[in-house]
Amino acid sequence: MTKDQVLILEQQGNISHLMLNRPEKRNALNDDLVAALDAFFADVPEQTRAIVISGTGGHFSSGLDLSQHVARQPLDVMAHSRNWHRVMARIAHSPVPVVAAMSGAVMGGGLEFAAACHVRVAEETVRFQMPEGLRGIFVGGGGSVRISRLIGTDRLTEMMLTGRTYSGVEGERLGLAHHLVPEGQAVEKAVELAGRIARNSRTINGFIIQAIAQIGSMPPEAGLYAESLTAALSQTGPDAEEGLKAFLEKRPPNFG
Amino acid sequence: MTKDQVLILEQQGNISHLMLNRPEKRNALNDDLVAALDAFFADVPEQTRAIVISGTGGHFSSGLDLSQHVARQPLDVMAHSRNWHRVMARIAHSPVPVVAAMSGAVMGGGLEFAAACHVRVAEETVRFQMPEGLRGIFVGGGGSVRISRLIGTDRLTEMMLTGRTYSGVEGERLGLAHHLVPEGQAVEKAVELAGRIARNSRTINGFIIQAIAQIGSMPPEAGLYAESLTAALSQTGPDAEEGLKAFLEKRPPNFG
Amino acid sequence: MTKDQVLILEQQGNISHLMLNRPEKRNALNDDLVAALDAFFADVPEQTRAIVISGTGGHFSSGLDLSQHVARQPLDVMAHSRNWHRVMARIAHSPVPVVAAMSGAVMGGGLEFAAACHVRVAEETVRFQMPEGLRGIFVGGGGSVRISRLIGTDRLTEMMLTGRTYSGVEGERLGLAHHLVPEGQAVEKAVELAGRIARNSRTINGFIIQAIAQIGSMPPEAGLYAESLTAALSQTGPDAEEGLKAFLEKRPPNFG
Amino acid sequence: MTKDQVLILEQQGNISHLMLNRPEKRNALNDDLVAALDAFFADVPEQTRAIVISGTGGHFSSGLDLSQHVARQPLDVMAHSRNWHRVMARIAHSPVPVVAAMSGAVMGGGLEFAAACHVRVAEETVRFQMPEGLRGIFVGGGGSVRISRLIGTDRLTEMMLTGRTYSGVEGERLGLAHHLVPEGQAVEKAVELAGRIARNSRTINGFIIQAIAQIGSMPPEAGLYAESLTAALSQTGPDAEEGLKAFLEKRPPNFG
Amino acid sequence: MTKDQVLILEQQGNISHLMLNRPEKRNALNDDLVAALDAFFADVPEQTRAIVISGTGGHFSSGLDLSQHVARQPLDVMAHSRNWHRVMARIAHSPVPVVAAMSGAVMGGGLEFAAACHVRVAEETVRFQMPEGLRGIFVGGGGSVRISRLIGTDRLTEMMLTGRTYSGVEGERLGLAHHLVPEGQAVEKAVELAGRIARNSRTINGFIIQAIAQIGSMPPEAGLYAESLTAALSQTGPDAEEGLKAFLEKRPPNFG
Amino acid sequence: MTKDQVLILEQQGNISHLMLNRPEKRNALNDDLVAALDAFFADVPEQTRAIVISGTGGHFSSGLDLSQHVARQPLDVMAHSRNWHRVMARIAHSPVPVVAAMSGAVMGGGLEFAAACHVRVAEETVRFQMPEGLRGIFVGGGGSVRISRLIGTDRLTEMMLTGRTYSGVEGERLGLAHHLVPEGQAVEKAVELAGRIARNSRTINGFIIQAIAQIGSMPPEAGLYAESLTAALSQTGPDAEEGLKAFLEKRPPNFG
Repeated sequence: MTKDQVLILEQQGNISHLMLNRPEKRNALNDDLVAALDAFFADVPEQTRAIVISGTGGHFSSGLDLSQHVARQPLDVMAHSRNWHRVMARIAHSPVPVVAAMSGAVMGGGLEFAAACHVRVAEETVRFQMPEGLRGIFVGGGGSVRISRLIGTDRLTEMMLTGRTYSGVEGERLGLAHHLVPEGQAVEKAVELAGRIARNSRTINGFIIQAIAQIGSMPPEAGLYAESLTAALSQTGPDAEEGLKAFLEKRPPNFG
Repeated sequence: MTKDQVLILEQQGNISHLMLNRPEKRNALNDDLVAALDAFFADVPEQTRAIVISGTGGHFSSGLDLSQHVARQPLDVMAHSRNWHRVMARIAHSPVPVVAAMSGAVMGGGLEFAAACHVRVAEETVRFQMPEGLRGIFVGGGGSVRISRLIGTDRLTEMMLTGRTYSGVEGERLGLAHHLVPEGQAVEKAVELAGRIARNSRTINGFIIQAIAQIGSMPPEAGLYAESLTAALSQTGPDAEEGLKAFLEKRPPNFG
Repeated sequence: MTKDQVLILEQQGNISHLMLNRPEKRNALNDDLVAALDAFFADVPEQTRAIVISGTGGHFSSGLDLSQHVARQPLDVMAHSRNWHRVMARIAHSPVPVVAAMSGAVMGGGLEFAAACHVRVAEETVRFQMPEGLRGIFVGGGGSVRISRLIGTDRLTEMMLTGRTYSGVEGERLGLAHHLVPEGQAVEKAVELAGRIARNSRTINGFIIQAIAQIGSMPPEAGLYAESLTAALSQTGPDAEEGLKAFLEKRPPNFG
Repeated sequence: MTKDQVLILEQQGNISHLMLNRPEKRNALNDDLVAALDAFFADVPEQTRAIVISGTGGHFSSGLDLSQHVARQPLDVMAHSRNWHRVMARIAHSPVPVVAAMSGAVMGGGLEFAAACHVRVAEETVRFQMPEGLRGIFVGGGGSVRISRLIGTDRLTEMMLTGRTYSGVEGERLGLAHHLVPEGQAVEKAVELAGRIARNSRTINGFIIQAIAQIGSMPPEAGLYAESLTAALSQTGPDAEEGLKAFLEKRPPNFG
Repeated sequence: MTKDQVLILEQQGNISHLMLNRPEKRNALNDDLVAALDAFFADVPEQTRAIVISGTGGHFSSGLDLSQHVARQPLDVMAHSRNWHRVMARIAHSPVPVVAAMSGAVMGGGLEFAAACHVRVAEETVRFQMPEGLRGIFVGGGGSVRISRLIGTDRLTEMMLTGRTYSGVEGERLGLAHHLVPEGQAVEKAVELAGRIARNSRTINGFIIQAIAQIGSMPPEAGLYAESLTAALSQTGPDAEEGLKAFLEKRPPNFG
Repeated sequence: MTKDQVLILEQQGNISHLMLNRPEKRNALNDDLVAALDAFFADVPEQTRAIVISGTGGHFSSGLDLSQHVARQPLDVMAHSRNWHRVMARIAHSPVPVVAAMSGAVMGGGLEFAAACHVRVAEETVRFQMPEGLRGIFVGGGGSVRISRLIGTDRLTEMMLTGRTYSGVEGERLGLAHHLVPEGQAVEKAVELAGRIARNSRTINGFIIQAIAQIGSMPPEAGLYAESLTAALSQTGPDAEEGLKAFLEKRPPNFG
């Protein structure tokens, strides 16, 4: 890939680093960029064990590119929203964990996108905002489900009513980010975390990102049952054997 | 209305400011006050675009007026609780957003009431407490649902078991408030926020306060579907047109 | 009981203080210890009004004793997990509230256990961690349900992917603890809280720990209905009478 | 009331018999008729213990009066639908049970209305149909929730795709009706059932129509807890005492 | 055991046949009988692969023994109901499937009990009824959850409001029974079915009775995930191997 | 396509007729056939308005081809099951309705497949069966979710425990089929129904098959809200206009 592309991939060993690359639009998510994400996640490289996503030009993403959104009919809006849902689900159900390195603007669709990632690093100067309400439209990229999962429906309602901005520091406190770093250091931290994640068993990483989310939508009793099924199944196959063997031999496991 | 009334309404342009007015009881919520709230929310003034609620005398509300509550039979308690639920639902489903300006005591039923509002401003000196457990009774004004939505069932359980008090500062951190201000400034901040909210499209404010809460009670897949329906529908009618036009023309929208 | 036992009970008036007592294993939860907890909660002493749980040797619990866990077949893992669920449910549904006094390691199964308690006190130096993922296994002691209830599925996913450690200070902020104390003071604080809880009506404490959790798994409308039923029922019997009488007479209630 | 009214009330002792009275339109539900139902259920006569609803002119109801529905804007359709939901909820949450006596056409909104009643009697010649799909519109009167509750989402989907008609005989088999009678006998049977229901305790009838429906939307464990609360509460007050006394004295209870 | 006992066990090879034995009370479920069921299901004989339950004297069970139920306080009613729930859950979560052979009266608590069994055979002359409502009390043995699961909340509401009786023929049609037999043949059919069930793998029978019910309380997407976990886990261990081997060798499997 | 293919497509105007074509295996669903279904539903012909699916050789489908299934590892079983779920979801979320024409064997995976279709026609001689349990394995193609949706978890549990067979006549009664026809007439009836469905608006057919299912997984209050959104949105665009115009002009609509 080259710098002309809206999505740049740098493969660093078993880590895929994706860069949103529309810096002149603060990486607004237009149809091309969504399609490029779709294509990547439909066919994650075989050797990849973790994915890092960042934005070029100092911003993660300013959200849906509204200049494309003008004058759509309601049923077109519905179709457009369902397509985002499909692509965001690909990310959330990625075969390997996804780490978002967030800087600058993380707004609207950009925050919806970040909320579909599994680990989120924020620079202190990040600006989280959901400005849709101010512009007279509702969210459509999954935010009412995924951002609510992070901060609750109550805080999301207030964010959208008032259009307020939260900083990276505040965002880490509320659940919009898991790690807080000084300006300019999000990618470095994200790559470090991706490296740590990549040393886990691919099987167990898959269960962690799938099963915990699924169990979270079950009633408690059913969730406990599903947890037991997952625990039992995670003991199957060579990775589980290596993990327990390494523990007994007091060495780090090597999951290949 | 006059100062003799348990609920004072001051209409400030398109903002309705309601004041709980039983200062000698720290605005304990007796049947008259609940009935007055019911009457107001059954017939919100046509011009109103946002509502501010505060308490006179330095307190938001000390909760259910227990002096009225003595010696009720169980089925009367049930009926009383269901009536609170009906009135609190009127507030939560208000045609326009409601901003609570909280000072002093925000206790028991007072906190249940605040939790039915959409935006909550707390003064640093606010005292949040759920003292029902200490008095040998359970909550009945919606708190087990609405306060749990803000801070989780686990924190509410601990609050009720120990009867602890959280300050305004702590409350903002936990989710009991969205904005923190020094003592004496809650109303001013609430009015400012109400003004900002009132500039939004009435239609979109309605979707924000209704749809996000409804989606929050759905399983994730169903929630995403409902989000797409809402997004599509929010594009219908003159407000949506003005919002997108204003965005293209780089001016603030005027939703009339 | 004697110091040789894996679980020590000290009865202090109406408070039962349980001490996990495998200090050489940082109180790792082996089958004997789980069985001892099972036995205690199956038959809580009649006079007990609150329970405190702590660990000897400076640690709460380092989690599942993996040295016992080696080479289990998947269906044995399932049975082992279901047995933990049964015992943890006994704790969560204990006839009286349970206060965890947490120091040192609160890891893996140790954190799952703490999450089944109703009140949690953390020393600042506590280390919260979910290391299962690093070892190639999933959780099986209820954590995917109960820890998610405290911090959300999103934060639990990140904890398990990266194996990160949260301090006591961070844990209190996130919801892993309700009270934060300096090193060495968790038991003292837990006993104080247990004493406060023990002065409540036993009936109302039972409703608080049962009903709020049950209502939390219901849709909102159904939850409100169940709240009204609970409120009405909590007015039945001599405790409710004493509580209201005491309130009117402006004295602390005496629930006997 | 007189024959000119769209809704006729005949009070027969403690039974209120409501007749939809637009026979020339096969009792299509226009705004006036919905408003009349709203007004009745907002203020059910004090002496009423059960309500019977039937249609004049040989039909229960042919559904929404589409001649009123023409050329509405989407947001008006939404408001219209929400108003139906409000009135149908009044019926479903009526203070006393409602028995529908169904004859002739029970179509579209007419079936949505019947599904909000607690007991449904069908004449063999009844024709159940959901024709909205054939006309290019979706249901809006609660049918996707309440008819699905009776026959499942799968059968409702098929009914709407094909526009098929089920007879009264088929409807009783599927769950659209509880009692099947020959043509012309629905009202008689409904009045008989209403009489039987009216002899029950008003309190217990209220719990039956409210609690079973609420429990039905809860996860199983939570539902069982709510059942126990309801059972306990149903033992409170004079009606419960009379019920048990009568059982012991082997006589029918007299709930007054 | 002898004929004096309220619960008779006949062990027939790998099938345990339990007989409710209070014929003079049409097998009304008093505390002794519930305790005897509790004791049996707490310790099902090792060799047992299926359980048959029937009633002596021509009736399955006339339900809760109300002669014991008189003059209980509300909180005692709650405790009594929770104890039934505990014992009924033991049956529903039995280690091996339970087949109910129903004759005569299957009323109230008797039907709640039958609904906790996994397979139900009804004689044509069975009389299903929920008479609690007529006596002024609500259900407390799990019926609002488990009978609703069989026939829906709507039919249960009607049954309780009118106190109607369904025959065995009708019950099989509605879902109260899976098999219909002439009078006097329920036990024979139940034993035959138990024999067929006992030839299945014990592991797979366990998954069938646990997993399908748990999945039934999950949202669809989560349910599908749990289904995949269960399918994968069911392939583990010697029973799965034998099952597939037998299929390939075109012989009946022998699960030992 | 030719007769050599496992899946034959006959395009009949705006109806696509798919034929499962492995008659020698009673149309057992092997990986090739599942892949062929996947490919078709990923790219439904533009002109298609309804899809009919039947089996050649007198059978609909005998289910998963177990001869391919031998000796899989648990994690492979999981992946295989998740792939079925993905393809079955494509069918259930097809852009146009799918009608299953069922004859002969409709067993195991064949019934899971049929349950993902929107309309099901059964010949009287159809044999519905879920034989997995007898072979020592659990379902993995969506049946625990989708067949439970048709007949409830209770009946599915019994089917799997006993391995019983239901006829077409019984299946129509229970909800496994919507239409019952004599042997040999399923395809003719299915094509007739598909023709009727194809005359509906494509937009409204899409809402019927998507929205009713999604609403069915929501709590009732949330479901009603989503119904209103759908009703409002269904009024948007040219199809809605034509539908209402045709109704007023008393002519069949022409949705083009």
